[in-house]
Amino acid sequence: MKNILIIGAGKSSSYLIKYLLEKSNEENLYLIIGDISTVNADKLINNHKNAESIILDVFNKKQRQNYIQKSHIVISMLPARLHLEIAKDCLTFHKNLVTASYISKEMKELDMAVKSNGLIFMNEIGVDPGIDHMSAMQVIDKIRNNGAKMLLFESFTGGLVAPESDNNLWNYKFTWNPRNVVLAGQGGAAMFIQEGTYKYIPYHKLFRRTEFLNINGSGKFEAYANRDSLKYRNVYGLDKIPTMYRGTIRKVGFSRAWNIFVQLGMTDDTYIIEDSENMSYRDFVNLFLAYSPSDSVELKLRSYLKIDQDDVMWEKLVELDLFNPKKKIGLINATPAQMLQKILEDSWTLQEDDKDMIVMQHLFGYEKNGEKKQIESSLVVIGENQTYTAMAKTVGLPVGIAALKILKGQINTPGVLRPISKEIYNPILKELEEYGIKFIEKTVPYLGYNPNIVIG
Amino acid sequence: MKNILIIGAGKSSSYLIKYLLEKSNEENLYLIIGDISTVNADKLINNHKNAESIILDVFNKKQRQNYIQKSHIVISMLPARLHLEIAKDCLTFHKNLVTASYISKEMKELDMAVKSNGLIFMNEIGVDPGIDHMSAMQVIDKIRNNGAKMLLFESFTGGLVAPESDNNLWNYKFTWNPRNVVLAGQGGAAMFIQEGTYKYIPYHKLFRRTEFLNINGSGKFEAYANRDSLKYRNVYGLDKIPTMYRGTIRKVGFSRAWNIFVQLGMTDDTYIIEDSENMSYRDFVNLFLAYSPSDSVELKLRSYLKIDQDDVMWEKLVELDLFNPKKKIGLINATPAQMLQKILEDSWTLQEDDKDMIVMQHLFGYEKNGEKKQIESSLVVIGENQTYTAMAKTVGLPVGIAALKILKGQINTPGVLRPISKEIYNPILKELEEYGIKFIEKTVPYLGYNPNIVIG
Repeated sequence: MKNILIIGAGKSSSYLIKYLLEKSNEENLYLIIGDISTVNADKLINNHKNAESIILDVFNKKQRQNYIQKSHIVISMLPARLHLEIAKDCLTFHKNLVTASYISKEMKELDMAVKSNGLIFMNEIGVDPGIDHMSAMQVIDKIRNNGAKMLLFESFTGGLVAPESDNNLWNYKFTWNPRNVVLAGQGGAAMFIQEGTYKYIPYHKLFRRTEFLNINGSGKFEAYANRDSLKYRNVYGLDKIPTMYRGTIRKVGFSRAWNIFVQLGMTDDTYIIEDSENMSYRDFVNLFLAYSPSDSVELKLRSYLKIDQDDVMWEKLVELDLFNPKKKIGLINATPAQMLQKILEDSWTLQEDDKDMIVMQHLFGYEKNGEKKQIESSLVVIGENQTYTAMAKTVGLPVGIAALKILKGQINTPGVLRPISKEIYNPILKELEEYGIKFIEKTVPYLGYNPNIVIG
Repeated sequence: MKNILIIGAGKSSSYLIKYLLEKSNEENLYLIIGDISTVNADKLINNHKNAESIILDVFNKKQRQNYIQKSHIVISMLPARLHLEIAKDCLTFHKNLVTASYISKEMKELDMAVKSNGLIFMNEIGVDPGIDHMSAMQVIDKIRNNGAKMLLFESFTGGLVAPESDNNLWNYKFTWNPRNVVLAGQGGAAMFIQEGTYKYIPYHKLFRRTEFLNINGSGKFEAYANRDSLKYRNVYGLDKIPTMYRGTIRKVGFSRAWNIFVQLGMTDDTYIIEDSENMSYRDFVNLFLAYSPSDSVELKLRSYLKIDQDDVMWEKLVELDLFNPKKKIGLINATPAQMLQKILEDSWTLQEDDKDMIVMQHLFGYEKNGEKKQIESSLVVIGENQTYTAMAKTVGLPVGIAALKILKGQINTPGVLRPISKEIYNPILKELEEYGIKFIEKTVPYLGYNPNIVIG
């Protein structure tokens, strides 16, 4: 039996565990699933004989090292900041590691040691990052191997609510960590390059600089720019490409309304509001508006942000019950972002039978023999239910497939890796297709970066 | 002879040195003025027999300690971040210290040690902070000693160009560190309280939430909120006051135009622009605008920020030569803020015979025997020339006066201090009047915080 240690049995682990359990008899696998509580793990194991749940406190070094030592491979499904200690233990005890998180600076620094020990630390192998890397690199390598020159790469991903569960004015529910949604786009200007021209968007303009995209069969979406698209030129080996843009997908109209929160200052997570625990939703809104002895919060807000009488954005705010003077936020020493999250969770929490959806689209522009061409590649994945979500599927399956291939020696290049070489992405993308994760590729007219024509 | 060590002979030291030299015979003073170059100090000393200039590298511990040891009191006119090592040396060698900077957390932590050594580390004794503290506390203490209750305190300060030198559309020139002007308001939301209601303004709205004020004889001004007014409730002993607001004064219309830079993202100092050294002013503007194969930078900017054809804001941008495709910025690895500063310095640098101006206004609202009253107290100081500026005068004089009074034992309460007790502010404010630094106090109708009436 090969022991697989999975650390973290949260929302994103369901499909990973399902996949590995399905393979466990034929591949001789035994899963040890550790978390601070066994409740979720036990549900996911459902008495399968090839798995056990354990209570594992990742900050307990002795306990953590004990389990890592006994495993053949380690999968960390914890938040990114908690990977490093696990990674160091894996180095000490000579174990391979898989995570779905971005390679941190500290993780990157382990590369030499990982290589010299002949180990594999595979990262960024979830959905975004993960499936986006693999599906993009497969097309980019194909284009380049064909002797063509890349001119444009744009890539968009979004975690949304499925159309059948989409029943609010924002066309949005929290299908993932709400905190990350509230803080999205913060921490620096968005940077990208279009037709050789660098572009920088400050956070407070990000949600007004969206672009539209059509995803075949699923309608029209919008996207706002991710923080640093420029660094992906190097990651993807596209250093001289004139257009490189990565973005986050929302349903049309979301960003313009979200911008109200940004403009007011409600997404700020850097300071604590005095007396936050006693504030009503209405008090919270009033914190960000000018003082008046008599004017209403509603009129002050409409006037401040110039929201017309007939603008649907206003209805979106009302739908959140934002002006309720009786509902208390009830959080002690909270930041504006935490208070906003609390209000949003009232309205945007998935209901029992709600389903989520992952959408992704890549655009590849290239030139061969003087002719310019464009490929559009799109993916839509709908979740099954609240346990087996599209998010858990698109994160967990590539993680599970990669872990198994590393365990079997089918992936064997050592180092701190992301899945951008064909030895890795080809077999994984192929297996993902068996689970319905399949990109639809179309050749479209070459437009370059020209948003007006794209929109029209 | 008493040795006074002055560390830093920059712009703000001229009046300080002039004052102390004028007192040097009668008070038996000898000034040792240290900086990394003696050029400026020599000019200011002008062969006076009671002073010498020395080359002093504040990072050279041995040299620094040598001079501190030989002095009777130390005045640090360096940037705030450089005070701490000097302060520690003053503790070691048992010397009093004077600075015009805000008390940092680290400086505050020295308080116990300073007290137990019977030393005085006087800080925040320039203009803002400094004269604002002293003049405000003098009135606040008078009101409270009179048995009245404080209801409102608003305080505004600005460093501006004098009316006779005010010849650009912005009504502004750099009379102080340009970098601080470009970065003003960053680092967190502005916080204050009005009529018992907390208010928070995010940076990207700060310059659109200005308020107007009239300063007798000098016309109408505007002010934007300083970062944290709330903490001054505690500093001034006004913990329960319903209205507390501190702001920065500009000429009317400055902030609305400055907001263009903020909205574009040009004041960001957190990232480096690729290829900054080869960019023209026009290229710089275009970084923050959407890509277009044909539309002009001008029209893209007008459309993006909705600047009407006849809006004087546009003329302000043109005056800065912002759209010039030939002028190069020429800074390597520069942030947007550094690049903007370079452009502004072309237009806003003081000319040889330009004069600067300091304006300050306090509003005090209070209640006595059921009656509400308000006092308005204002100060205007015009500089003499580019060496003896209003800024150098209002910073240097209180520093010099305080240093001399400490030296003579007239200020003798030990600790890490700011000038908020009457033993300190009364004699200093009295002496400042001899130099024309005198507040005009008026009783005005009580309005509370009610901007519409105040403006009307």
